[in-house]
Amino acid sequence: MRLSRFFMPILKENPKEAEIVSHRLMLRTGMVRQQSAGIYTWLPLGKRVLDKVNAIIREEQNRSGAIELLMPTLQSAELWQESGRYDAYGKEMLRIKDRQDRPMLYGPTNEEMITDIFRSYVKSYRNLPLNLYHIQLKFRDEIRPRFGTMRSREFLMKDAYSFDLDRAGAEHAYNKMFAAYLRTFDRMGLRAIPMRADTGPIGGNLSHEFIILADTGESEVFCHKDFLGFDIPGEDTNFDDVAGLKTIFDKWTSRYAATSEMHDEAAFGAIAEGERLSARGIEVGHIFYFGTKYSEAMGAKVLGPDGKEHTVHMGSYGIGPTRLVPAIIEASHDDNGIIWPKGIAPFDVVVINMKTGDEACDAACGKVYSDLGKAGFDVLLDDTDERAGGKFATADLIGVPVQVIVGPRSIANGEVEVKDRKTGARETMTVEAAINKLVAAR
Amino acid sequence: MRLSRFFMPILKENPKEAEIVSHRLMLRTGMVRQQSAGIYTWLPLGKRVLDKVNAIIREEQNRSGAIELLMPTLQSAELWQESGRYDAYGKEMLRIKDRQDRPMLYGPTNEEMITDIFRSYVKSYRNLPLNLYHIQLKFRDEIRPRFGTMRSREFLMKDAYSFDLDRAGAEHAYNKMFAAYLRTFDRMGLRAIPMRADTGPIGGNLSHEFIILADTGESEVFCHKDFLGFDIPGEDTNFDDVAGLKTIFDKWTSRYAATSEMHDEAAFGAIAEGERLSARGIEVGHIFYFGTKYSEAMGAKVLGPDGKEHTVHMGSYGIGPTRLVPAIIEASHDDNGIIWPKGIAPFDVVVINMKTGDEACDAACGKVYSDLGKAGFDVLLDDTDERAGGKFATADLIGVPVQVIVGPRSIANGEVEVKDRKTGARETMTVEAAINKLVAAR
Repeated sequence: MRLSRFFMPILKENPKEAEIVSHRLMLRTGMVRQQSAGIYTWLPLGKRVLDKVNAIIREEQNRSGAIELLMPTLQSAELWQESGRYDAYGKEMLRIKDRQDRPMLYGPTNEEMITDIFRSYVKSYRNLPLNLYHIQLKFRDEIRPRFGTMRSREFLMKDAYSFDLDRAGAEHAYNKMFAAYLRTFDRMGLRAIPMRADTGPIGGNLSHEFIILADTGESEVFCHKDFLGFDIPGEDTNFDDVAGLKTIFDKWTSRYAATSEMHDEAAFGAIAEGERLSARGIEVGHIFYFGTKYSEAMGAKVLGPDGKEHTVHMGSYGIGPTRLVPAIIEASHDDNGIIWPKGIAPFDVVVINMKTGDEACDAACGKVYSDLGKAGFDVLLDDTDERAGGKFATADLIGVPVQVIVGPRSIANGEVEVKDRKTGARETMTVEAAINKLVAAR
Repeated sequence: MRLSRFFMPILKENPKEAEIVSHRLMLRTGMVRQQSAGIYTWLPLGKRVLDKVNAIIREEQNRSGAIELLMPTLQSAELWQESGRYDAYGKEMLRIKDRQDRPMLYGPTNEEMITDIFRSYVKSYRNLPLNLYHIQLKFRDEIRPRFGTMRSREFLMKDAYSFDLDRAGAEHAYNKMFAAYLRTFDRMGLRAIPMRADTGPIGGNLSHEFIILADTGESEVFCHKDFLGFDIPGEDTNFDDVAGLKTIFDKWTSRYAATSEMHDEAAFGAIAEGERLSARGIEVGHIFYFGTKYSEAMGAKVLGPDGKEHTVHMGSYGIGPTRLVPAIIEASHDDNGIIWPKGIAPFDVVVINMKTGDEACDAACGKVYSDLGKAGFDVLLDDTDERAGGKFATADLIGVPVQVIVGPRSIANGEVEVKDRKTGARETMTVEAAINKLVAAR
């Protein structure tokens, strides 16, 4: 993408309304724009990051055997009356009447709808296990939306729902998602720690929040330092291996980890002092096993191998992509701007033309841009008329992992500079060498 | 994807509520499920097709220079009061009050919001031309939603919005989208004919509907037969070439073409009888140039090269992916089911194991499945316990372009059958030959 043809409205000033660094940086870089309280447009730069985050989530959901569908945003009130949550949900549910005066709502979550879909098609244990997910907009009418897309009203959520014949099956389904989540966050450059959690309005018996550590996190968390070194399940993880996944789950729940609401001071105190980690964290995922809560209320049953009807055991598993993006920024930035982890950067490389219009600079930039593009990189070429200093600042601000800097003096020797956004390390090399180095490091 | 692990609830009976063939087939194949009147879930098979349709739309929008963002579904009423459409829009607009009693609405289209975004960032002609698009849910509270996702209430729309300094620039923007649309529909196996259209509630001076011919189409259309042979702009189309795009536009508007509402009996009658085409059609895209209608009302101005303020000229360009899917089915099916054009089939190949559990069949199926998967094909392997006849019927019904049929008798000779869903042509060949043939034909 040539910046001269892109739409990336960088703000010169720090926006006053932003209380936290991710919100400030997302506004400054032109990633998002607020349209109404807690309702955002994802501008092109932000949309690119969101797409990459969604792609990783999707790949890991699919790898674990979950199947994607797409449920609508608007739901009928009837469905929620069946589960009893229509009255229970309170003011965060956006209630709507259509032109026929039928009561509807903008879905804040989809347990009811997916249970309705399940019961209308699945009648036999032979079709289990089943895990269906979608990545779809939700609306929760927060009284105080804030922190940009970290706590917005209209937001994107990946929500998966598992269906199993019995508790043992459901626990395996839970462990699958547990492992998939560890992989998902790891691929985004995050160390997410699963912490035993309260089940809240979803209900149920077993629940973990996945928390990343960040100084600006909204909640206090307490855990054992061992979590920082635990292995992430590999790409070759066999999600059908019941015992293998249980081992991963056991390992990752073998040490103390709790948010303040579930905190047990005595248990935490029992950890050797040097091994204790008390920090702030941001919730990036939440998984629940809630047994037959919805299937019982809504009659989701299958015939078992015993020829009898069984009420299915369910779980639900959420990740908020529009929340994850600012969470990643909270965990990865410096005074100059965002530092994107590799897999989710809006562009892999930014090529900075220090003197647009200079024949040698233009030619070298064109070559790097086109060669890397052909090699499968997403490249941003800053071919605008801005002065070099402004271009450097913008490149740092938007946090693209690698900068290739092309200036008239060094290009006279056939050389460019390659800068690592994170470490700040710079290396001067020929155009060819720069291209080869980047392609080799892919 | 192994069918035994997929979720594809095929209905045995033809659903009674479906009035048109696409709706019937989408329900029967388990592509969609109605949740409320005019509100659908896209089940996994349907979601796969929808994703492929969106991917083609996106590629062609990007190729033409349009830039993707994502605006929210909910909008504030204020914005629509500025343009005057809040009162004008009528009952199709779903009006909502949030918990603070603020009037909101579920966006039926985004002219107001994109104009608001534009005016808040763009101040100079140097940032033009600009074309921003998104693929986002819309809601129109149709009094009689029907025909499945062909005319639903919650639906997906790709809507692009162009901004130019003057009418000449806006016409070039219009011609870019015109060419992009021809390419988009062609890649989906459709011959779409641009027909001069009424501008309706969007307003403006110039508008074309893109209509595909289908016996079950909702509107009567009249055009010259030459349209069936016109060349589609190539992949190498230069979208910056003003004259070149004008030539494409002129060519594709050089013959008579009109829907019944714009029909001119005399002009149509002037065409030689053998050259006249009177048929039924389905609208799959609609483009508008509406000048300064919204920019004037909402103050979207830029400084021109003359140092003066200019109200920008705008256009909008829509394609409804959730409508396009049934439109494609209307245009491409037979008595046995859907016949997907290559680029948008939910799977490229279905491998039918006639005798799951038979060692030789399982091994051959596994090899075809895995080799084609590695070669980049989306493969569905029917490894269920259903009898062979049922598997054949399902494969035909869901319309995957190529079937590889593996039966115990032919596999004893190392052979499989390759069937073309569209022509019904079958060829027997070795497993290796089948794989090579498919890979070569990619």
